[in-house]
Amino acid sequence: MLVVMRSHATPAEIARVVETIAGLGLTPHPLPGATRTAIGITGNTGAVDKARFEVLPGVEDAIRVTKPYKLASREMHRDDTTIAMPQGTVGPKSFTVIAGPCSVEGEGMILECAAHLMSRGVKFLRAGAFKPRTSPYAFQGMGLEGLAILKKARAQTGIGIVTEVMDVEHAAAVEEASDIIQIGTRNMQNFSLLKRVGQCRKPVLLKRGMSATLEDWLMAAEYIMAGGNYQVILCERGVRTFSDHSRNTLDLSVIPPAKTLSHLPIFVDPSHGTGKRAYVPAMSLAALAAGADGLLIETHPTPDQAMSDGAQSLDYPALDALLAQIKQLAPFFGRPV
Amino acid sequence: MLVVMRSHATPAEIARVVETIAGLGLTPHPLPGATRTAIGITGNTGAVDKARFEVLPGVEDAIRVTKPYKLASREMHRDDTTIAMPQGTVGPKSFTVIAGPCSVEGEGMILECAAHLMSRGVKFLRAGAFKPRTSPYAFQGMGLEGLAILKKARAQTGIGIVTEVMDVEHAAAVEEASDIIQIGTRNMQNFSLLKRVGQCRKPVLLKRGMSATLEDWLMAAEYIMAGGNYQVILCERGVRTFSDHSRNTLDLSVIPPAKTLSHLPIFVDPSHGTGKRAYVPAMSLAALAAGADGLLIETHPTPDQAMSDGAQSLDYPALDALLAQIKQLAPFFGRPV
Amino acid sequence: MLVVMRSHATPAEIARVVETIAGLGLTPHPLPGATRTAIGITGNTGAVDKARFEVLPGVEDAIRVTKPYKLASREMHRDDTTIAMPQGTVGPKSFTVIAGPCSVEGEGMILECAAHLMSRGVKFLRAGAFKPRTSPYAFQGMGLEGLAILKKARAQTGIGIVTEVMDVEHAAAVEEASDIIQIGTRNMQNFSLLKRVGQCRKPVLLKRGMSATLEDWLMAAEYIMAGGNYQVILCERGVRTFSDHSRNTLDLSVIPPAKTLSHLPIFVDPSHGTGKRAYVPAMSLAALAAGADGLLIETHPTPDQAMSDGAQSLDYPALDALLAQIKQLAPFFGRPV
Amino acid sequence: MLVVMRSHATPAEIARVVETIAGLGLTPHPLPGATRTAIGITGNTGAVDKARFEVLPGVEDAIRVTKPYKLASREMHRDDTTIAMPQGTVGPKSFTVIAGPCSVEGEGMILECAAHLMSRGVKFLRAGAFKPRTSPYAFQGMGLEGLAILKKARAQTGIGIVTEVMDVEHAAAVEEASDIIQIGTRNMQNFSLLKRVGQCRKPVLLKRGMSATLEDWLMAAEYIMAGGNYQVILCERGVRTFSDHSRNTLDLSVIPPAKTLSHLPIFVDPSHGTGKRAYVPAMSLAALAAGADGLLIETHPTPDQAMSDGAQSLDYPALDALLAQIKQLAPFFGRPV
Repeated sequence: MLVVMRSHATPAEIARVVETIAGLGLTPHPLPGATRTAIGITGNTGAVDKARFEVLPGVEDAIRVTKPYKLASREMHRDDTTIAMPQGTVGPKSFTVIAGPCSVEGEGMILECAAHLMSRGVKFLRAGAFKPRTSPYAFQGMGLEGLAILKKARAQTGIGIVTEVMDVEHAAAVEEASDIIQIGTRNMQNFSLLKRVGQCRKPVLLKRGMSATLEDWLMAAEYIMAGGNYQVILCERGVRTFSDHSRNTLDLSVIPPAKTLSHLPIFVDPSHGTGKRAYVPAMSLAALAAGADGLLIETHPTPDQAMSDGAQSLDYPALDALLAQIKQLAPFFGRPV
Repeated sequence: MLVVMRSHATPAEIARVVETIAGLGLTPHPLPGATRTAIGITGNTGAVDKARFEVLPGVEDAIRVTKPYKLASREMHRDDTTIAMPQGTVGPKSFTVIAGPCSVEGEGMILECAAHLMSRGVKFLRAGAFKPRTSPYAFQGMGLEGLAILKKARAQTGIGIVTEVMDVEHAAAVEEASDIIQIGTRNMQNFSLLKRVGQCRKPVLLKRGMSATLEDWLMAAEYIMAGGNYQVILCERGVRTFSDHSRNTLDLSVIPPAKTLSHLPIFVDPSHGTGKRAYVPAMSLAALAAGADGLLIETHPTPDQAMSDGAQSLDYPALDALLAQIKQLAPFFGRPV
Repeated sequence: MLVVMRSHATPAEIARVVETIAGLGLTPHPLPGATRTAIGITGNTGAVDKARFEVLPGVEDAIRVTKPYKLASREMHRDDTTIAMPQGTVGPKSFTVIAGPCSVEGEGMILECAAHLMSRGVKFLRAGAFKPRTSPYAFQGMGLEGLAILKKARAQTGIGIVTEVMDVEHAAAVEEASDIIQIGTRNMQNFSLLKRVGQCRKPVLLKRGMSATLEDWLMAAEYIMAGGNYQVILCERGVRTFSDHSRNTLDLSVIPPAKTLSHLPIFVDPSHGTGKRAYVPAMSLAALAAGADGLLIETHPTPDQAMSDGAQSLDYPALDALLAQIKQLAPFFGRPV
Repeated sequence: MLVVMRSHATPAEIARVVETIAGLGLTPHPLPGATRTAIGITGNTGAVDKARFEVLPGVEDAIRVTKPYKLASREMHRDDTTIAMPQGTVGPKSFTVIAGPCSVEGEGMILECAAHLMSRGVKFLRAGAFKPRTSPYAFQGMGLEGLAILKKARAQTGIGIVTEVMDVEHAAAVEEASDIIQIGTRNMQNFSLLKRVGQCRKPVLLKRGMSATLEDWLMAAEYIMAGGNYQVILCERGVRTFSDHSRNTLDLSVIPPAKTLSHLPIFVDPSHGTGKRAYVPAMSLAALAAGADGLLIETHPTPDQAMSDGAQSLDYPALDALLAQIKQLAPFFGRPV
């Protein structure tokens, strides 16, 4: 942190800033210049609140010099993180497709879907047993019964399970049933839940909050990693902007800076990102080209009858066509599929 | 819901929409017009997914005609909700100030602050025992020990306690310690937590999510009310926009439409909304003028030494000055203080 | 500008930054520290592009220390600007109401409206002769004929005229017809037009762009002032956000920081800011309470028949009621009306 | 337009809506239903203001059924527009790269750059003679002298010229010097300028405004097309959001809906969209994959010495590497280069 004083700041104003810094148990370093004084701060373990200094008399600006996240940062860990699972490895040399319906709707449908995906080379099934629905009157998911169905699908086909945990209460059950635990966008800053999955030893797919900056997102990853779980996968799924041409604004432009600042893998969910199935294939290929390590795609045997999010789900022929395009395109980006 | 077909839609396309509606257990009402057909939908108990129809061939647009929230809506409950508590009544004929530090930092400080506030006519103390901090390395609050301190402050002074609940696990303890339970902005769509406080019988102050539309916000209130807890207070605290002149963009413009669509009281938190103490008084008076029913103001005996959010906290003389202005201004708006 | 190097930056990387600065004709000041080096920059007359340094190898961050605007800044001009006109003075001791229809629709209507406003103590009439309409098929304004009508209204009643200029071509005609020249929100960064009105000697009301930061806005004011026209009035009129409860998001929270950073007066347009007449009175009073120096209110004798923006226009009785409230409330803020 | 009445709307309220519609010269079609009445509107040539009806007593909602743009819409023109120029054809079967420096900085540099680009197969040079700079103190471009240099480059090498017009005054000169006239993002709703280039007979590259919805953008194209100039190329260049990881948020997700709603070609400017050269190659390939018809890339022989926007400019080796990747990848998308 660097506190920049106004050009006409008085010695008393400078002294007050120095005292405020010392009063926080930190070390002030006054640096007088030709037209103004700046005061460096060291000794902080976490982030120092910038605004605390901005309001003191005589202060022009307070500037944060270092990043507030450590374990998630590229500075701490230069190489890209890879996550090895029985079904495959997530990382810079591969491209991982996770597909499946929005919700677990019943046993037959999930078993059939798992078998279909495995037959197409898709090694991970996504499906929610606990559903974060905007309306309390909407279908809330099959709960523990849904988890049992997912476990059965894994036992029968070997497919990896990706499913969402919504609260601390069900964390153990979700961890047991899943190969990758999903944290949904609305819970990206549910810090109690982040701490809890930091205790898990399964990889965590962390969806970006609807208005999360890249720093907020990496700080949420830091919460999980600070608990000892270093297997975090970031997942971009669209953010809230003024733009109204689709359900959300899928922000592919976050991928290059995320790769620069962090070593964590990053996936893209074009289904929630666009909200319309017609836009999913183009945005999937664009995600691959932008540097994503994988995709999360909603697919359903009969999208028009889906219990949730049918409008953004691909049917099987559309998924097959997209997988064929990915297979052809991914090697161009050093990601043999 | 009304599904509007394109002008050149074929009879087969219209038939498919009708079938899709019927397949969802709803009743389709085809309404042929001069240039195009529209199809009304009735029989839905909750909201119908608009996007489900938008993707069908021949469909121009799908339009939601009724609001997805019921208990929170002005249509269901024409009069403004008032919430009576021992310390005072929240509603259209009063203006309620809640003040206090960001965090419970210790017993002496809270007791002293409670006594000071009561001496100034402020009947509610806000202070967090559980703190949702962006960084896992920042002070996370005093937890259960903090709740014990708040209970002691209430016992000694009679002041009402407003404090945040962060997870289902601590809901019972927070309910016991508080007169108003706070749901923080990052948990506005933590649906497990919303359902849990729907079981509480204390009023809930529901902060708006950083990118929540008014509808999202009222749907979150609906989750609480659907559980039988009708005492919900909305609280605007700034939203995320492109604008960078303050920590958030305090959206006072949401107050008139919130009052039009809902009967619930609405408070404003200008401290988080601006992030700088110098801007708090002007925005407090503006909130009153815009129609707010109360304020949530961070105050601290020595803001420069606060353990969190010191930069946006008023000191006691600044709070006193603001209270004096409110006392003079509130009667103009039919809110004797 | 201060360029902060990474902790492991090499001497060669530091040397390249120093050379880049020198190559721009500026003076580099390397400041080695315990863990990293920072490099100060002086000698720039205008702003230096921050991103130019951020991309160089070894650079952690580039930090702007001074503001890029000068004439518009409070540092340059400590006292609030006041603008004296025959009809009244704009500034911190007064509260100026500008009212009138969106468009000049005809002579009778404007003369009648001007007379009505003067009878109510409103000294400035707003009405557009040139209209920036989103659709090329919408009414584009009466043009020069409209300006002639406005001049006639001024001659007959003495009312001040506020009207928009859309291009350099008509700048002289608009200047002649108006007492305050309006720059619309869509032209806030039409730099050719800003330079042209910088040559005018009438006050300029500069509407904020739909996604303009406070800095963008003050830089637009700087363009006008750099031409020698120091009589600039800022006007907030709503910005674009994710929020959909009204036409725009009226950002009253910009007022306190604008007053801190700049000496220029600031007005608020709650009609465009909300888009609905029912919300205008509450937001008008909130603007006054937030520190605004005046209002721009759309009013129309028969809003339901207005040729543009009828939905956000007050009728005369509604305007009268609002003026009565302002009269009562403004003295509280040191602004006798 | 469809006006939906509340369920308890009175006959008098319905009659007032019908009268208001008729009073606008339009035809009302009342459609009584089981629980409420809706009123259709026909006879409008342009868009009808939705908000005008929303404020009438008894009205629940007003819903726009048809799009306000016609010439730009896919409904009017089913096939993708192609634009043939001597240097090449813009459209669905090709991928057009436009490259060059931000500004014309001098004759030698432009002639050298044009020759280099032609040697690499790049047929269009972009460079600004008139520069829209945020600061009045920044380099404003070489003006007419710059246009003369661009004409010389075209004469010597045959390269196509893409350059920005900032005002009506210089429109004729820019049209003469250019093969594609650029409208900058800050002028997307400078309607006087849009009308003027509608009179030109050169293609117009229309950059998206910083907070323009897709509809705003297509309406701006409609302004140009309404003047008889149908050769419009849309260009996405990043929008303003809360996100701060790059200069703007490059919105590739707008491409699929733009292609659905309109027949116009769409380009992407990843240089302004990201503001950092390191992110340009990934976003360029992603734009191609998302369905873009071309790119606008800033390149400079020595970016660190550029007079503007150096931080986002590629040097020649980086451009060469990107062109090689595009050459390999474009045929996959049916766009032989």
